[in-house]
Amino acid sequence: MGTASAKQSGCSLSPTHANNSHPMKVGVVGGGQLGRMMGLAGIPLGLEFRFLDPVREAPAAAVGELVVGALDDPTALRTLAKGVDRLTYEIENIDVAPLAALTPAPAPPIEALAVAQDRCQEKAMFEALEIPVAAYAIVASAEDLAGAAAGVGFPAVLKATRMGYDGRGQRFVDNEAQLRAAWQDLTSDTAILESRIDFDREVSMIGVRSADGEHRFYPLTENRHEDGILRVSRAPAAAAAAVEQQARRHLAAIMAEVDYVGVLTVEFFQQGNRLLANEMAPRVHNSGHWTIEGAVTSQFENHLRAICGLPLGSAESLGFAAMVNLLGSIPPAEQLLADPELHLHDYGKSPRSNRKVGHCTLVDSDSRRLAQRLETLQQRLDQGVGPGD
Amino acid sequence: MGTASAKQSGCSLSPTHANNSHPMKVGVVGGGQLGRMMGLAGIPLGLEFRFLDPVREAPAAAVGELVVGALDDPTALRTLAKGVDRLTYEIENIDVAPLAALTPAPAPPIEALAVAQDRCQEKAMFEALEIPVAAYAIVASAEDLAGAAAGVGFPAVLKATRMGYDGRGQRFVDNEAQLRAAWQDLTSDTAILESRIDFDREVSMIGVRSADGEHRFYPLTENRHEDGILRVSRAPAAAAAAVEQQARRHLAAIMAEVDYVGVLTVEFFQQGNRLLANEMAPRVHNSGHWTIEGAVTSQFENHLRAICGLPLGSAESLGFAAMVNLLGSIPPAEQLLADPELHLHDYGKSPRSNRKVGHCTLVDSDSRRLAQRLETLQQRLDQGVGPGD
Repeated sequence: MGTASAKQSGCSLSPTHANNSHPMKVGVVGGGQLGRMMGLAGIPLGLEFRFLDPVREAPAAAVGELVVGALDDPTALRTLAKGVDRLTYEIENIDVAPLAALTPAPAPPIEALAVAQDRCQEKAMFEALEIPVAAYAIVASAEDLAGAAAGVGFPAVLKATRMGYDGRGQRFVDNEAQLRAAWQDLTSDTAILESRIDFDREVSMIGVRSADGEHRFYPLTENRHEDGILRVSRAPAAAAAAVEQQARRHLAAIMAEVDYVGVLTVEFFQQGNRLLANEMAPRVHNSGHWTIEGAVTSQFENHLRAICGLPLGSAESLGFAAMVNLLGSIPPAEQLLADPELHLHDYGKSPRSNRKVGHCTLVDSDSRRLAQRLETLQQRLDQGVGPGD
Repeated sequence: MGTASAKQSGCSLSPTHANNSHPMKVGVVGGGQLGRMMGLAGIPLGLEFRFLDPVREAPAAAVGELVVGALDDPTALRTLAKGVDRLTYEIENIDVAPLAALTPAPAPPIEALAVAQDRCQEKAMFEALEIPVAAYAIVASAEDLAGAAAGVGFPAVLKATRMGYDGRGQRFVDNEAQLRAAWQDLTSDTAILESRIDFDREVSMIGVRSADGEHRFYPLTENRHEDGILRVSRAPAAAAAAVEQQARRHLAAIMAEVDYVGVLTVEFFQQGNRLLANEMAPRVHNSGHWTIEGAVTSQFENHLRAICGLPLGSAESLGFAAMVNLLGSIPPAEQLLADPELHLHDYGKSPRSNRKVGHCTLVDSDSRRLAQRLETLQQRLDQGVGPGD
């Protein structure tokens, strides 16, 4: 099994000294907190890291070599790729063309990245794979607005086709006047007008696929966003087995379609027992940070195992977990660590309004006790220098 | 509570950007695997690291700045200490004098290090604190041998007073002729002749103490050594509450004696419900590596929390854990990771006979299942390129 995988991915399975004269080196496009946590997960596997980031103070610089340069600069990308055994990325908003020219070929495959970057392609892929989505219409010019509104109805949300994340490039619209204003404001060639559905909750499914087609899925995660930014994730999200299976099936279909290798995240709106795909992220994801302490193998480690051709680790959860993003600045550590079971993750970033600068994870074998601890934490954060500060 | 601690330790409690213009930086004497795991535990707390190590390929170089120099070189030590907020050490076999001259003062206190380095001082401290030890005699010259043998009896073990670890500087002796030969071979000014007691098992207790005197103790760990080198640790070691309490009491007594800050390990021989102290290590310890995945807060994180004046984390175990040292070289990763719940720690060291190059940890909620998984792992290691290779 292991050997088959090695042959398929075209190189040695083992990142260790035992079989190679040098440790396996992973190049990562982007050096933010996702890269930092990838490094923390990969160093114990014997991996070494090199990151490309435009900023010298990149969080991932703590766990590897840093190439300072623009993420779309072909020269900087070649410097990143030189001599590394694997290439991956921790950010979606990057030019596909210079990445596609690199050796080794990045994993997850560039095709998945291209689809995720373009809401039109993404919707088309979801529909082709029979993954339900909310009603939508493509808006390519002001002339399309009336027809789109008629087809989709209100309330709706107008989303720029490309490069949207954390709620950027999105506007809620309740009528045609608001829609016209939003279109004016949106500096995008095309947009998608999407029905604003009345969902029960937002959930995400995170899965990982190896080069030989093995899958592992984390339990469904429930997410709470505010102003388009993830605030709290909880897992496993109590869900009917059928819902969990739907989500896994949708991820597996996407992964098979593009011969995916690595971690893939899909965010869904849940209405009753129905899931509507919102968007996909071809990378480790904020809603999976709880897996560091809350699952047997974290999303970061499993992403690395997949791209390095190592056997995947168990994605089983360890009790109940809650993850709270720290936005703006890190509150005083003694305030957070007053809960002796809390896990703090400080990304080493300077404070800035609404910036994701860290997160906290709570894990508990008792879901009611977890809820109480979460409430206490949120009170501490609200009282002190907390999220959004 | 937090504030009192901050005042006692003379600086801010928080290592984070919120309260300081710079992140808190920790200087570590030694850059081996213990430093590497310390860095992996401290980076999520927002800490930065600088290590001093004689070797450019030091395992800890992956997680911080590296000063290459001898551990007893005053200039190198000053370079390490320059501008750091905290100083600690991850190795015991280092000169105390140049360390004692540094600012900030190292934690754990130099006094504890000096005692641990000298078996005579160590035994004297254990006895002063009413911590039982095996019968022993100090041997300062060949003339002392007969008297020591008469007092201690055989079988015995002759141990160099200073700088012994992993079984080095020790010789088993069964009669006076062997004792004389061992004394000749031992290139040490003084030695201790110690009764080789017929123990049931070896156990260790790992505890942490903060500057304001708060304690946390990990569950008792059972250790199996071969040729003086730790092979396997299991925790929690099933033990009578009285035994667990004895061990905690002994650690607390040592800690109080020297106003200890950080993680302290004491190894014991257990005979029935009686514990005899073997030796202490004023640092994070190989027998505590299981705490990374097997306890709420790892020994590495709690050591850093203590020396940085942060609240201590819970030392409770998460189910049952077993840690297996990888000696010589790392076996092929796919062989180890065939257990999808196994945690691999590759220290990034080049292979060398009997060198500690990594470890594996298994955690399980079911102790019988853990025992089966451990047996399977050991079979895999025995069949392949395994420990001792």
